[in-house]
Amino acid sequence: MRIALDCMGTDGAPASEIAGAFLTLQEQADDLTFVLVGDRVPIEEALRAAGSWRQGAVEVVHAPERVLPEDPPAQTVRRRPNSSIVTGIRLQKEGEVDAFVSAGSTGAVMATSLILLRPLPGVARPAIGTLLPTAAAPTLMLDAGANVDCKPHHLLQFASLGAIYAQDLMGVDAPRVGLLNIGEEPTKGDELSLEAFALLKQSNLHFVGNVEGRDIIRGVCDVLVCDGFVGNVLLKFYESVAAFTIKLLTRETEREGARMDLEEVLRVLDYAEYGGAPLLGVNGVSIICHGHSIPRAIHNAIRVAAQAVRTDMVGHIARDLRGEVDPGFPGPP
Amino acid sequence: MRIALDCMGTDGAPASEIAGAFLTLQEQADDLTFVLVGDRVPIEEALRAAGSWRQGAVEVVHAPERVLPEDPPAQTVRRRPNSSIVTGIRLQKEGEVDAFVSAGSTGAVMATSLILLRPLPGVARPAIGTLLPTAAAPTLMLDAGANVDCKPHHLLQFASLGAIYAQDLMGVDAPRVGLLNIGEEPTKGDELSLEAFALLKQSNLHFVGNVEGRDIIRGVCDVLVCDGFVGNVLLKFYESVAAFTIKLLTRETEREGARMDLEEVLRVLDYAEYGGAPLLGVNGVSIICHGHSIPRAIHNAIRVAAQAVRTDMVGHIARDLRGEVDPGFPGPP
Repeated sequence: MRIALDCMGTDGAPASEIAGAFLTLQEQADDLTFVLVGDRVPIEEALRAAGSWRQGAVEVVHAPERVLPEDPPAQTVRRRPNSSIVTGIRLQKEGEVDAFVSAGSTGAVMATSLILLRPLPGVARPAIGTLLPTAAAPTLMLDAGANVDCKPHHLLQFASLGAIYAQDLMGVDAPRVGLLNIGEEPTKGDELSLEAFALLKQSNLHFVGNVEGRDIIRGVCDVLVCDGFVGNVLLKFYESVAAFTIKLLTRETEREGARMDLEEVLRVLDYAEYGGAPLLGVNGVSIICHGHSIPRAIHNAIRVAAQAVRTDMVGHIARDLRGEVDPGFPGPP
Repeated sequence: MRIALDCMGTDGAPASEIAGAFLTLQEQADDLTFVLVGDRVPIEEALRAAGSWRQGAVEVVHAPERVLPEDPPAQTVRRRPNSSIVTGIRLQKEGEVDAFVSAGSTGAVMATSLILLRPLPGVARPAIGTLLPTAAAPTLMLDAGANVDCKPHHLLQFASLGAIYAQDLMGVDAPRVGLLNIGEEPTKGDELSLEAFALLKQSNLHFVGNVEGRDIIRGVCDVLVCDGFVGNVLLKFYESVAAFTIKLLTRETEREGARMDLEEVLRVLDYAEYGGAPLLGVNGVSIICHGHSIPRAIHNAIRVAAQAVRTDMVGHIARDLRGEVDPGFPGPP
């Protein structure tokens, strides 16, 4: 398996990306090759600094152009053809790699994936899925920001895409699908959620009903669907609250010289544990990481990419869209 | 000043409400009378249990009828005329009390306030404001759930209502108003936020622009406006994350026998510190508390009610709606 890794995305690029790849190779070395995309010189320096690499574990593709924050995402392909994002995704389009992982601009990765990889036939709006840590298993929330002003049928499709991700990547046989809403009752919500509720209820998904903001952290569903506006607000809020809590705790721990074992607390709140948001519904594997990703987060994103390839998640989604029978879904509970 | 206190709202009613009132009277005893509304016998028992009360500090109004969770909020006035909610709000309408504080059903308090107190002339949609704890001063977010499917001009009015609350209750001279959105740039967002941005930009409010989910916890604005759908999701999510973190920390502390001083962490995350969400835009003072409110949260809600009366917040809003000059707003920065 060959994975293109954008080495110009994180705050600590390219060292963080390369350290993430190195972590992955400690675990699964045999069939994995990284195609490191970015500025060759710093990449090669970071490779040497990281340690000793198995022969054939890494290749470097020089793509030094920067995607700037002010660049319109939709014009990345045209304006920044030699950027690591465009180069890495093009490698996948051309069959040179099986997946692409990037901590670069979410908008640029998304737009470039849509343009070069294309949505799968039948997908109205590819969506960004993101794993939210909960008290139970993590919940995949989508859309996390690719689409605002969604229609009810978009939310239904997000649910289908998310359910396949949960099957293939989270190992859940019959994923519980919830609809983010402001009350449990089917009569609660805005126009969008009222209509989406009806569509989800009629679907063959394992729909568990409305999920309120307070229920998310309990892990009451495997897949949580919402409009990309509220999903994006919620995701960024969660990340910041987690980071803030960790900072407060760290400060207190230092001040008090306490030896309290906060590992469990931090593990639950720590976003890096779940690094890597898939863009679901495109004809390829495109995993988006946070710009602040530490090596462990990159490592986790690479694992997601590798497993999406191994399980042929994209083929699974395509078969589902063609209406081919999917024994994984048991129908309404 | 006379404040009607619903004594049938919290999980620990009426003891929690009465303990909250007792806390308040330790601080400000002279001009305050509580009108305790609910089932007379348990109220009088709780009064005796709570301690010794100043002569004239409390009166009891018997209103034993329960508002059930399945009651449609809009029919509370007609179906539950002898409930503590309807009785307490009617007392305010009739001028018997100056404010009403309740931890009962948010929907019932809101609908009953709208029906009996009425929106102030010119208010399209009263909104629920709620204080979010942040790393800096708390932020008033509105709407927290009274209105879904808002129009841009509703968000503009929420901003005006919230700014007056921030002046009168939070002591902020020129409140910074932010618009909850998915990006900082004016071009980001859904249709609602794009249009609301333009309206806020043109207003005489101190508009500081879009605020992302990740910025909330930093306390970058005093007033944060959003549709009631996203506001409600966010509020409930925040409460649950805070509660969850506190639970994790408590468990760890017990297990490790640590002596770490978590007071600061807990204070920031502890919602009870800020108890009491005002319904802004009605002709009266109606403060809604969480059903899980502990006495300290009730106490804080009572303080909010008392200060809203002292500052004549309702009159301030009415003058603002009539377009009378308000020197507190400096205009655009």
